Amino acid sequence: MTEPVPGDLDGHTVELDRAHVFHSWSAQAALSPMVVAGGLGCRVWNHAGREWLDFSSQLVNVNIGHQHPRIVAAIQEQAALLTTISPPTANLARGEAARRIVDLAPDGFTKVFFTNGGADANENAIRMARQFTGRDKVVSTYRSYHGNTGAAVVATGDWRRVPNEYARGHVHVFGPYLYRSEFWATTPEEESERALRHLTRVVESEGPASVAAILLETVPGTAGVLMPPPGYLEGVRALADKHGIMLILDEVMAGFGRTGQWFAFDAYDVVPDLITFAKGVNSGYVPVGGVVISDPIAAHFDDIVFPGGLTYSGHPLAMASIVASIDAMADEGIVDNAARIGRDVLGPGLAELAEKHDLVGEARGAGVFWALELVSDPESREPVAPAVVGRAKALLLERGLLPFVADNRIHVVPPCVVTDDEAGTALAIYDDALTLLTKELS
Amino acid sequence: MTEPVPGDLDGHTVELDRAHVFHSWSAQAALSPMVVAGGLGCRVWNHAGREWLDFSSQLVNVNIGHQHPRIVAAIQEQAALLTTISPPTANLARGEAARRIVDLAPDGFTKVFFTNGGADANENAIRMARQFTGRDKVVSTYRSYHGNTGAAVVATGDWRRVPNEYARGHVHVFGPYLYRSEFWATTPEEESERALRHLTRVVESEGPASVAAILLETVPGTAGVLMPPPGYLEGVRALADKHGIMLILDEVMAGFGRTGQWFAFDAYDVVPDLITFAKGVNSGYVPVGGVVISDPIAAHFDDIVFPGGLTYSGHPLAMASIVASIDAMADEGIVDNAARIGRDVLGPGLAELAEKHDLVGEARGAGVFWALELVSDPESREPVAPAVVGRAKALLLERGLLPFVADNRIHVVPPCVVTDDEAGTALAIYDDALTLLTKELS
Repeated sequence: MTEPVPGDLDGHTVELDRAHVFHSWSAQAALSPMVVAGGLGCRVWNHAGREWLDFSSQLVNVNIGHQHPRIVAAIQEQAALLTTISPPTANLARGEAARRIVDLAPDGFTKVFFTNGGADANENAIRMARQFTGRDKVVSTYRSYHGNTGAAVVATGDWRRVPNEYARGHVHVFGPYLYRSEFWATTPEEESERALRHLTRVVESEGPASVAAILLETVPGTAGVLMPPPGYLEGVRALADKHGIMLILDEVMAGFGRTGQWFAFDAYDVVPDLITFAKGVNSGYVPVGGVVISDPIAAHFDDIVFPGGLTYSGHPLAMASIVASIDAMADEGIVDNAARIGRDVLGPGLAELAEKHDLVGEARGAGVFWALELVSDPESREPVAPAVVGRAKALLLERGLLPFVADNRIHVVPPCVVTDDEAGTALAIYDDALTLLTKELS
Repeated sequence: MTEPVPGDLDGHTVELDRAHVFHSWSAQAALSPMVVAGGLGCRVWNHAGREWLDFSSQLVNVNIGHQHPRIVAAIQEQAALLTTISPPTANLARGEAARRIVDLAPDGFTKVFFTNGGADANENAIRMARQFTGRDKVVSTYRSYHGNTGAAVVATGDWRRVPNEYARGHVHVFGPYLYRSEFWATTPEEESERALRHLTRVVESEGPASVAAILLETVPGTAGVLMPPPGYLEGVRALADKHGIMLILDEVMAGFGRTGQWFAFDAYDVVPDLITFAKGVNSGYVPVGGVVISDPIAAHFDDIVFPGGLTYSGHPLAMASIVASIDAMADEGIVDNAARIGRDVLGPGLAELAEKHDLVGEARGAGVFWALELVSDPESREPVAPAVVGRAKALLLERGLLPFVADNRIHVVPPCVVTDDEAGTALAIYDDALTLLTKELS
C-alpha cells in the first residue's frame, strides 16, 4: 500500500478502499466511491474541501444532520465513562434511552429490546410475534425492504430477497401504490379498498390461524416512498385484530422525524403490536436498532425465556447517542421542522417540478421523505432506463447535491434539520439537472 | 418513573431497567441485573463504588480491558470528525481498519466486509459461500453458537436454535470433545480421527456436491472452550478441499487475542476460506463485526453483485476503534500477554484447582480462554445441577469476581491484559468458592 500523497488524501482513501473494503449490494470491480471526510448539518465534504448538499441523509438515516454537537458530545462523554457492557447488566444510559423511546410510543408500550440495526430489529420482532402467537407465517409486501439477515431479507420483497430465500414461513402480497396500481384502481380510496381486499384474500387463503404477523413499513421507503392511502393501515389493523395476527410496523426508515412525525404511524389511526426502529433514532451515529414491544407481548415473556439476544444489545455508546438525539430533536423542534419543510417548501416545490418536467411522472411524500418518479412517457408511466437515473445522479453530484436514487426514482430525503435556503437551493439544482437531462434525452 | 435518590443511583438504574429494558435470552420477570457504571482494565464497578474483577470480559468480548485510553481517545476523535457515513462512500478510517485486519490474516486474504456484529458476519459468510459454490447446505456442530439472526441461529447447535428453526439448508454434526466423547474415544488422537470420520460420513451422506460450507468456531466458545484435538482442523480442511466446500472459521469469540494468538487458527496448520470476527476486534467498544474474504471468493464478486449489505457497514466510529485497538494490542504486546498468562499462570493454576476439587472434572483452554467443568461425580462426569452453578456464581460475585457461567461450567475468560496479580487473586477466589461450594454440597 502506498503512503498518502500530501494533497491527495482523497486518492489515498479511494486506493485503500478499493484494495481492502468489500462493499454492500455491489459488483466490486467497477466501484468508484466518493470520499466523505467530514460533514456538518446538511453538508458533507471530501479531504480536498469539495462540498455537497446531502439530500440522501446517507442511507436516509442522518435525520438530525451530520455532526450535531450534542450527540457528538454525548458519545464522547459516554466513551470516557463506559464504552461497552454486557446485556445482562443494568446501565443508566440504557434505561434512559429505553424510557425516552417508550415515552414517544403510544400508550401500552413500556419495554424496548435493543439490537444493532434495523435487520435484527425485524428478526426479533418476527421472533416475538411467532413466539407470542405460536404461529409461523409472516405476510409482507413485494415492495419492501426489511434488512439483510435470514428472516428480514426473506420478508423483504425487492430483488434483494431473491438470491437469499433460505427462510421459511414468508408470504408476499402487493401493497397500495396508486401510481402503478396492481388492482386496476383509479382513486386513492379505491386503491386502499382493493389492496385491503387483496391482503384479506391472501390471509384467508393462507389460513388466518397460521399467520403470526403482518409486517409493513409504515411508509415503504426504498421501494418508493409509498404513502399509505386513506384507510389502508386502519384496515390492516382491523384484519389483524379479527384473526389474532400481530401487526409489526417497520419504522426503521420512516420513523423519528422523517415524515414530520416521531413515528410515521402517528399520522394514521393505527397502533401496531410491535414497532421496529433504527436509523433516525440516533441518526446512525452509533449502530443501533430495536423493537418497542406492546405490553401483552412483553408480558408473555415474563416467565417464558425469550429466545433471542446479542452481545451489543443496549450498547452504552448507542444508548447515550439515543438519549442526546431524542432530547435534541425535541428541544430544537426538529420533527416539526421536517413537517413544515415538507408542507411549505419541498411539497409545493416538487409538485412544481413534476408539473414542469414530463420526465417526472409523480412527486409524493411528506416531511423530508419524498420521491420523484422518472418516466420516459407520462402517459404509459414507463420507468426511465437505469442509465438515465445514473446520468441524473451524475448531473446532481456535479452541481453539488448528493442524491439518493433507487430504481427509476430520485428520493428527496435531506436531514430533518434542512433549512428553507438549503431546500430552495436543492430544488433549483433538481430543476436544472432535469432540464439538462430532458435536453440530452431529446 | 421516580427521580434518582441521591446516593442510590444503582437502585434508580435497576428500576429504570426493570421498567423499560427487555433482556436477551431471558424470562423477564425474575431478572435482577447487577449495575455496571464504569470500568478500567480488568475491573468494573457500580455507582456506589463496589468493584468486581471482571473474569467474564462481559460476553467474552472486552479483550483489551475496559476503557483502554487509546481506544477511548480514538472514538472521541472520530466522533468529532465524522460519526457516520454510508457504505457506498470511501472513508479513510474504513480503509485503515480493513488494511490492519488483512495484515493479520494469512496470505491470500485482501478484502474485508464489515457488519454490525458476529451474527451478521456469519450470515454474510454463509451467503458468500452459497453464492460462490452455487450450493445450499451448511454443516455446523451441535455444540456451537453463531448468532441470533435467521441463518446464524439455525447454524447454531445449542438450545437457542430450537425455537428458531425457520432457515433451511442446515445440517448438524458432533464435533470433537474428548471429555464427553460422542465417539467412544479415549485419547485426543482417537477423538480427532473419529470426529473426522463422523463429519466425513455426514458430508458423504448429505451429498458433498450439495454442501456449500462447513462452519466451525475454531475453538467452540460458549459451548465449553472445546480445544480442537491434534489434526482435527487440518482434517476438516482436507475434506473441504476434496469436495470444493468452503471452510468458514468463526473467530468471533476465539479471535483477536483470546487464545493467545491473533486468530485462534494460527495455532493450527489450517487456512479457512472465510473468517468471521466481532468482539475482540475492537473489544466491543463500538458494535462491529465482519468477514475476511479469501481472494477467489472476493474475485467472484468483481463482476457479480454481492447480494448482502447493511446501513452501518464500515461505520466510522467502529473503524476508528478497530484501528486503535489493533495498534494498541500490537504495541503493548497484549496478545503475547494472553499467551503467557495462559501458559504460566492460568493453565497451571486451573489444573491445580481441578486436581484439588472433585467438583472440577476438567480444566481446559489456552491463553485467557478456559473452562472448568463442574461435575457431581468425577467418575460418571455427571454435570452439576443448574442450582449449583447459580450458587457458584453467587459465591464468586460475593468475593468480588464477576464470572462467566454456561451450563455446568465456569469459563475463566478475563481480558487479555490481565496481570499476574489479578490472575493470582482470581485463582484464590475460585479456590475459596469451590471449597465452600463443596462443603455446602456435602
